[in-house]
Amino acid sequence: MPRFWGKLVRIKDALEKAVNTIKLDVNIVEESIWHATGLILARDLYSPMDLPRFNRSAVDGYAVRSIDVAGASPTNPVVLKCKGIIETGDPPDKYGIISPGEAIEVLTGSPIPPGADAVVMYEDTVRKEDEIHILRPVSPWTNITRQGEDIGKNQLMFRKGTILKPWHLALASAVGLSKLPVYERVQVGVVSIGSELVEPGKPLYGGKIYLSTDVMVKQLIEQLGFTTTKYYGIVPDDLDRVSKAISKALAENHIVVTIGGTSVSDKDLIPMLVERRGKWIIRGIALRPGRTTGVAVIDKKPLFTLSGNPIAAWVGFEAFMKPLLHLWLGAQPEPYPAIRARLSRRIVNPVGYRSYVRVLVRKEYNTYYVEPYRVKGSSIISSLARTHGFIVVEEDLEGIEAGEEVEVFLLNPSNIV
Amino acid sequence: MPRFWGKLVRIKDALEKAVNTIKLDVNIVEESIWHATGLILARDLYSPMDLPRFNRSAVDGYAVRSIDVAGASPTNPVVLKCKGIIETGDPPDKYGIISPGEAIEVLTGSPIPPGADAVVMYEDTVRKEDEIHILRPVSPWTNITRQGEDIGKNQLMFRKGTILKPWHLALASAVGLSKLPVYERVQVGVVSIGSELVEPGKPLYGGKIYLSTDVMVKQLIEQLGFTTTKYYGIVPDDLDRVSKAISKALAENHIVVTIGGTSVSDKDLIPMLVERRGKWIIRGIALRPGRTTGVAVIDKKPLFTLSGNPIAAWVGFEAFMKPLLHLWLGAQPEPYPAIRARLSRRIVNPVGYRSYVRVLVRKEYNTYYVEPYRVKGSSIISSLARTHGFIVVEEDLEGIEAGEEVEVFLLNPSNIV
Repeated sequence: MPRFWGKLVRIKDALEKAVNTIKLDVNIVEESIWHATGLILARDLYSPMDLPRFNRSAVDGYAVRSIDVAGASPTNPVVLKCKGIIETGDPPDKYGIISPGEAIEVLTGSPIPPGADAVVMYEDTVRKEDEIHILRPVSPWTNITRQGEDIGKNQLMFRKGTILKPWHLALASAVGLSKLPVYERVQVGVVSIGSELVEPGKPLYGGKIYLSTDVMVKQLIEQLGFTTTKYYGIVPDDLDRVSKAISKALAENHIVVTIGGTSVSDKDLIPMLVERRGKWIIRGIALRPGRTTGVAVIDKKPLFTLSGNPIAAWVGFEAFMKPLLHLWLGAQPEPYPAIRARLSRRIVNPVGYRSYVRVLVRKEYNTYYVEPYRVKGSSIISSLARTHGFIVVEEDLEGIEAGEEVEVFLLNPSNIV
Repeated sequence: MPRFWGKLVRIKDALEKAVNTIKLDVNIVEESIWHATGLILARDLYSPMDLPRFNRSAVDGYAVRSIDVAGASPTNPVVLKCKGIIETGDPPDKYGIISPGEAIEVLTGSPIPPGADAVVMYEDTVRKEDEIHILRPVSPWTNITRQGEDIGKNQLMFRKGTILKPWHLALASAVGLSKLPVYERVQVGVVSIGSELVEPGKPLYGGKIYLSTDVMVKQLIEQLGFTTTKYYGIVPDDLDRVSKAISKALAENHIVVTIGGTSVSDKDLIPMLVERRGKWIIRGIALRPGRTTGVAVIDKKPLFTLSGNPIAAWVGFEAFMKPLLHLWLGAQPEPYPAIRARLSRRIVNPVGYRSYVRVLVRKEYNTYYVEPYRVKGSSIISSLARTHGFIVVEEDLEGIEAGEEVEVFLLNPSNIV
């Protein structure tokens, strides 16, 4: 147990407590349907109109009165007089009402003229100039998409909390909405802590190392789609300087995340800083790796604490920060692509921890086999970049036996051969 | 068969022909590791250095000579003299070489001092001022991450064609690379065709309808992560105006996609335009819906033709345009999140077509059941926005029987209850 950390809580309890204790203060804004993919709907959305707005042909053919063609057959066709063509975009009453014995040519998407109640497809007709020979009967409403069939006026389209996809925006546009009420992008300040860190591109000396976790975490956050990030650079292990950097980041963002400064050395500043300036809500989670993951409140805003260790930070983000950002806005995180695979070697789990095990997958005769990737500690970055995915082992399990089928969440599916 | 279209080809053949016939002309650029997520690596990438650059402690404890502590036990501890602490970022030779009988305190990530070959964890020691009582032996290299263990100098990191994820960029940063060679963002011009279309927010009249497919396609393209789009507005059904709009879009982008103008009416301009100005490579694909999907070459650039119908356009994008954009750059598309589910109603497939069937999923006692969503035609936009996902039925199948287990690709997983 790291010396600065409290009793580790289970991830489920950590999420529940954090979502109930901390409120994320973001505004509701109107965003254009052209730029709203990935944003989260802030109110239930109802359709302002019927879609389609009029009865519409679902095929190319002739709009008819179904009663007129009830007895039609190839040997005994019904002959109708064609009044013209209604193209898509034309008004439905271009030729007035269809009277008995009349037909009007329509295309897929054309409005159905008043009086008509069905469309006969080209294939079931023979045209001789203005005479249309109908070869088959049609029942009422055949080949017609009825007014409001896609969505009706005042009908619920999407619930608050929906993560908007391109097809949601297509439907919103189709009912005439040019903007939607969404939560503004969540601004996240990212602060790197560690005197040992150097930005890539600069020379290394002594025991210094290049940044890595920070580069990943910043882009993991941006990939959520409803966030923006601002990077505050590397802050050395100095309590005052860390405190100042966090103050600035908190003032300029909705949320701040610190990377590093959380482990057991006397130099680890985040626990000291939180005790001085704010309040822990979650101080350590039973994650393996990732137990120094936490969230505090300073200056009334959430401060996430992620490990400087890349794998522990990734687990802290995946297991805690990502779902929490969704939950605060009433949304559900998207599932990872996953496959089912047979475990080829036993995994041991320390009961009480949820473990994230990086794995390699191989395919043999249409069966996937999966085995843990052998690494020391959780500092090996290539274990995320060069494996295929990961398995989650829940807290109550002592492990998973070889031969069992498990779900593998795919990090780098294209590496699988 | 739409009258302007040729013999429909199978999707596999269409992709193979298009990737072999058309070359996408994009530049290789150097992109910052802070902004490269989603971009495609343009060259094989080798590590310029060992990672870690030095032997590194994997735990907090004392660096020792393993030979010194070979006989240590709790009842008979080996006593070493502690020379000081090497913190992360300190040079490994801060206290020179470790001599017999000496130890140096180290933290997780600290360099190992010369002469030491193992680290004893705090838990296995008792400290009395400068005397460290070692309670257990350690074998050589215990608790040390060795130089180059994460990745070695000149070792292959990632292959050309890798879609860069945040963890790839973390590893690149860790070995000191601040920029990576990637393909520049593919610029895609989007042209809407149809006199019946009106932008949302403006009033509708007659048989006019609001844009929808276009809003979706533009954002589907942007979601790829390695693209940008430029929208050219609504062009009415007029051959000259469509031709001019496409010329402008082709001049300003790597690729152009037209939406609409592909179905059977005399007004359908794209087939006429391609025959006049360029050459079809793929003219119609055996997709259901989506058979008017194609790609031509005009002014030496690819022109994709998608249906104006939202579902057909979505299938054309998913089945053809998206994989082709990846294949041109040597990358593999990411898989959709998917679940296995039991089909509760038979699906019929016209042999020779690959069908995309939108479905509803429900969960009963840990089993997922799936059934096709009943819609007329492929113009019902809510069938993408309000269903849960889709099933792909391959060309050789006459259908899938009720009771069979199928893979459901998830469009809106959070809708599932």
